[in-house]
Amino acid sequence: MNSSMIRIVLGNVLKIEGVLMLIPVVVALIYGESTVPAFLISAALAIVIGQLMVIKKPKDTVFYLKEGCVSTALSWIFMSIFGALPFTISGEIPNYVNALFETVSGFTTTGASILLEVESLSKSILFWRSFTHWIGGMGVLVFLLAILPMTGGSNINLMKAESPGPQVGKLVPRIGRTARILYGIYIGLTVIEIIILLFAGMSFFDSICTSMGTAGTGGFGIKNTSIGGYSPLIQWIVTIFMILFGVNFNAYYYLLFKHFRQALNVEEVKVYIGIIVASTLAICINIAHMFSNLEQALRASSFAVATVITTTGYSTVDFDTWPAFSKFILVILMFVGACAGSTGGGIKVSRFIISFKTIIKEFHSYIHPKSVKAIRIEGKTVEHETLRSVNVYFMTFICVFTVSCLLISLENQDLVTTFTSVAATINNIGPGLANVGPTCNFASFSVLSKFVFIFDMLAGRLELFPMLMLFNPTIWKSTFTSRINPRRRNWEDCDKVRK
Amino acid sequence: MNSSMIRIVLGNVLKIEGVLMLIPVVVALIYGESTVPAFLISAALAIVIGQLMVIKKPKDTVFYLKEGCVSTALSWIFMSIFGALPFTISGEIPNYVNALFETVSGFTTTGASILLEVESLSKSILFWRSFTHWIGGMGVLVFLLAILPMTGGSNINLMKAESPGPQVGKLVPRIGRTARILYGIYIGLTVIEIIILLFAGMSFFDSICTSMGTAGTGGFGIKNTSIGGYSPLIQWIVTIFMILFGVNFNAYYYLLFKHFRQALNVEEVKVYIGIIVASTLAICINIAHMFSNLEQALRASSFAVATVITTTGYSTVDFDTWPAFSKFILVILMFVGACAGSTGGGIKVSRFIISFKTIIKEFHSYIHPKSVKAIRIEGKTVEHETLRSVNVYFMTFICVFTVSCLLISLENQDLVTTFTSVAATINNIGPGLANVGPTCNFASFSVLSKFVFIFDMLAGRLELFPMLMLFNPTIWKSTFTSRINPRRRNWEDCDKVRK
Repeated sequence: MNSSMIRIVLGNVLKIEGVLMLIPVVVALIYGESTVPAFLISAALAIVIGQLMVIKKPKDTVFYLKEGCVSTALSWIFMSIFGALPFTISGEIPNYVNALFETVSGFTTTGASILLEVESLSKSILFWRSFTHWIGGMGVLVFLLAILPMTGGSNINLMKAESPGPQVGKLVPRIGRTARILYGIYIGLTVIEIIILLFAGMSFFDSICTSMGTAGTGGFGIKNTSIGGYSPLIQWIVTIFMILFGVNFNAYYYLLFKHFRQALNVEEVKVYIGIIVASTLAICINIAHMFSNLEQALRASSFAVATVITTTGYSTVDFDTWPAFSKFILVILMFVGACAGSTGGGIKVSRFIISFKTIIKEFHSYIHPKSVKAIRIEGKTVEHETLRSVNVYFMTFICVFTVSCLLISLENQDLVTTFTSVAATINNIGPGLANVGPTCNFASFSVLSKFVFIFDMLAGRLELFPMLMLFNPTIWKSTFTSRINPRRRNWEDCDKVRK
Repeated sequence: MNSSMIRIVLGNVLKIEGVLMLIPVVVALIYGESTVPAFLISAALAIVIGQLMVIKKPKDTVFYLKEGCVSTALSWIFMSIFGALPFTISGEIPNYVNALFETVSGFTTTGASILLEVESLSKSILFWRSFTHWIGGMGVLVFLLAILPMTGGSNINLMKAESPGPQVGKLVPRIGRTARILYGIYIGLTVIEIIILLFAGMSFFDSICTSMGTAGTGGFGIKNTSIGGYSPLIQWIVTIFMILFGVNFNAYYYLLFKHFRQALNVEEVKVYIGIIVASTLAICINIAHMFSNLEQALRASSFAVATVITTTGYSTVDFDTWPAFSKFILVILMFVGACAGSTGGGIKVSRFIISFKTIIKEFHSYIHPKSVKAIRIEGKTVEHETLRSVNVYFMTFICVFTVSCLLISLENQDLVTTFTSVAATINNIGPGLANVGPTCNFASFSVLSKFVFIFDMLAGRLELFPMLMLFNPTIWKSTFTSRINPRRRNWEDCDKVRK
């Protein structure tokens, strides 16, 4: 383990976070709020500690996937620990565990909240809460790669560990440029949403916070009724932008560089849109009798489908009161999630496409035992390595999910609440059903359960392995022994040479 | 498709079923019951139709996996259609759909019932009901292989399609002898249980029916209180025999032929016992406060764990009233299931072992990217083919499970009932939670839902692919075109030669 390089990454992440914390200071100044010291203290702490961590230059810059995983997991944990400080220092969320839950929920773009109501919070705190979604949506390490040149394998392994989906889509050969293009598209789309929302009659502050929550597919509302209190037009706009931010960013890259045919041919996006249309229609028919006209039913169903499949978590109506059939579709969509390479969470549409094609192939092999047929997506053969990683991902997901439910059930007696609270956090959605439905929150859970959810949110956002890696004793053992045992160190160097 | 060979298999299965139906006639005669004509008519129908199907000899006896799957699926469907006749003809279950549900539940060793109470049924009908468990437990096609010599690939492909687990364990090189050894062990263990139950004070009739239900891991009770009304000693005996019938029969084969070291070294059995011990202890601690002494709590928890993990479905107490933690463990065990190569259902312990080892291997590859480490069970490398089939099994299971839940949720408004009713049928257990808990039944579901459950029970018992294969249009197309298009036929022959 190259622990010096991990230290460098962590230090840089903290420094970036410290600088980003100065933006809510501006908000606090504009609205004349008393939260300025809270943000300044937190920012100073992050910047100073970050700077101390990067002073000593690393001896070697070699950086493998394990270092990528560990530094990503630790970056997100550190980011959350420091990001929670303004909430507690300002006194708006006095309990630090609650503040940590809220911050992790923010950065991981989950949107699950421990707040009973949000309208009494100051504007600057509301801004920071929504801003964490926006930072976490595209990823802070992708941001790091966009602004800092890194070498020695750091870039691709950091990108692999933080980006969602079974394959890492390098848009262009250079990772730094890929990261900059991704952030460019991300900023562009966010600004377009802000402008459209302004035209639709939303206030400037509301449209910025709402757009950041949509862009990161986060879901923290700035009103107690989330998006439910806004006009139907605004609800439609948010629906469309939630869907747009759940699209694989590769498609936008193709559009940007005028590869229109390729843009229209991204299989994952086609399936994703197909699922949204089919689910919306099925739910709309199922709930039509609960609304006074078809537009209302269609708006409610499309909003619910969009908020759940993109794992945003905004709400307009309480879908926990809908019939079981509709609720079951939403539970399925919770796990499906958005496209890989988007800001959305969940298991990702592309993993389901690959799994489904694997099943079809198996049937084919029963009927034609000797035929050899590769699994193809958009005409390209899916590599064996990808197939294996998709399968392992499903299995690991099931394990983490089951253990989490078991821990939550120690305290919570309602099975639907237990199941959907874990589903809503590990898939980074926010609301679940029953006691964690759209009108409820996570405040009443015990500290143990809150830490389970914190773990699940981070594990879901980072696609399981980086977080689970922290529990692997050999990771820590090799960090330790490489310091005290030079022979072991040499053996590790051999490992590098072999690579 | 070699449809003539499928016809021969189906005919033979019906003839065997007809003969087996004569045994309840003996029971009816002993107890002087009026069900004799019902069984005689059903038996005659099965034997005559079966005989008509086997008269015309097939032109060729070549038999691939697809024929194995299709004939297994159709055999089980035909067996159930005829097996339901005595219930309806005797008037004891007048509604034929209900009778079919009960019969499928019997043969697939599920034990889910539509009967509101069972003590008013005649002894012969109760016997037939429990006897279907015993027949279905080891499998009627395995029985066919044990008594009839079959060639042309029929034997291994029938065995593959009917036997549970990721790998087909041929105990000895000849399939016919393997089948006879399996049935020998099965009959032997059943007789031992009958004798022990007699000594423990159970009546002759009760001990035969209870043992057949235990042996097949079925779970139809002959009392309204299932096993709850019997003495603690009897409850302990049934617990132990449920666990014994969930053991991989390979272990008994090793014991029988004095390979003691191998018998003690079957990894799946060790893990299976480990899961039982751990779950029992966890539940016992969780429910201890609900009982007056530790023996009661331990008896209740070990019985519940044994009945769920072996997918038997007998009950002593209503575990639906237990705390959420205990219920959640039971829900997990529903999916884990018993060992491969046992009479139990579920996904099977060995599949979980293989999946778990795949996850461990993935972690290892993150830390040592260049190392190549094969997955081993009992020192032997697990073939890539097996790994793939385990993964595909999980994916297919999730698909069938999800679609079933969606169909049930059209009618049922309670999510826990929907989820656990599908879990209880597809895993061949019997009782679930909430409205399908141990004290409830499946009577109130609509005909559509009952057919979904019937499909799930059959799909679960035959491990998904044989039943799903029936929905593959190419299967039927090739049967059809091979008759009318001689060129297509020749092409299929080429396929055979290549094989």
